[in-house]
Amino acid sequence: MAQRVVKQERAERTRAALIRAAAEVFGELGFQGASVVKIADRAGVTLGAMYFHFRNKDDLAREIVSAQPELVVPPQPSQGLQRVVDVTLTWAYQLRDDPMLRAGARLVWEQDQFLPPEENSHQQWTRIIVDELRTAKSRRELRAGTDADALARVLVNSCTGAQMHSAIETGHRDLPQRIEEIWRCLLPGIATPSATKRIELGEARVKV
Amino acid sequence: MAQRVVKQERAERTRAALIRAAAEVFGELGFQGASVVKIADRAGVTLGAMYFHFRNKDDLAREIVSAQPELVVPPQPSQGLQRVVDVTLTWAYQLRDDPMLRAGARLVWEQDQFLPPEENSHQQWTRIIVDELRTAKSRRELRAGTDADALARVLVNSCTGAQMHSAIETGHRDLPQRIEEIWRCLLPGIATPSATKRIELGEARVKV
Repeated sequence: MAQRVVKQERAERTRAALIRAAAEVFGELGFQGASVVKIADRAGVTLGAMYFHFRNKDDLAREIVSAQPELVVPPQPSQGLQRVVDVTLTWAYQLRDDPMLRAGARLVWEQDQFLPPEENSHQQWTRIIVDELRTAKSRRELRAGTDADALARVLVNSCTGAQMHSAIETGHRDLPQRIEEIWRCLLPGIATPSATKRIELGEARVKV
Repeated sequence: MAQRVVKQERAERTRAALIRAAAEVFGELGFQGASVVKIADRAGVTLGAMYFHFRNKDDLAREIVSAQPELVVPPQPSQGLQRVVDVTLTWAYQLRDDPMLRAGARLVWEQDQFLPPEENSHQQWTRIIVDELRTAKSRRELRAGTDADALARVLVNSCTGAQMHSAIETGHRDLPQRIEEIWRCLLPGIATPSATKRIELGEARVKV
């Protein structure tokens, strides 16, 4: 019994090490540039152990992309529109140093190679944001006529484009500023004047 | 003399055929998937003729990316904010069928492989849009406090993200709708109420 627990713990450690290694390798080389050999090497495990946990690099890439939203947890409690702001800002600041988020950001450009269209990262984030925007709507933070679904798509599209261009130009250093300017352009048009005034941007929102 | 003209015309036709072929191959296979051999084959020219015109596939990719803005010419005359709207809508409708624009849209994801960071497609489009937004500002179409440079970046970021997600989900069929919803979310916040009311969206703007 005790031996089974030890074995299981070891398997879980190996699995976690493989995901961490895959994140690093995908982040550096992209999906096409990565290989199971490079990932197993980086994790310090045999190819056999690697194939015990994952069928191929597609499996690892899907695991990393689908884990993205749960990695982004704003440190301060918030609801509605401020929550959506906090999620995007936390993502932007965290992306600069977190290998899992950096891998996710890089894999997004190549996701058609390992994800079916209906499971893409855009759908995943849109669902989360639209829920929070519905809360914002019930709290009367959105202007009459603001379409929560359309706004969620616009937010995910603009954050994705900002991420891509920020990667090329500054290796993501200027991503938080780009996300803040998206909000400054959007807020007056989509939020009520009192909500617009109340919403906080800036690094203080995401400091632990 | 006449012979030289004939030769020059033939060279220009070959060059154009190579660019057209490269656009098709890049659009189908991306930058990494394409090769000079495939492009020369598609154009029906020898590798020697191909290398007479372009040093490598990087050269061809740069040519296609840098040609993008001049391919997008709104059919109706307009100025200021309506011009920016028209450019984005023309691009979105035209992208669905134009091999050169489709190649540009695909190459954007891989541009770090053949373009220096300061020449990226984001910079290219931002410069064009910011000029037109300054005109909008002088025509008093923008709200006081709207930062033309920030707004240009937000527009290019959101159009890029929309393009990427629309490619994955619908092969760009829904791109015009995505661009229109970006404008519907942005306009009330960045434009004066009278400009917001005056701005026209919809396919009629881009019909020849």
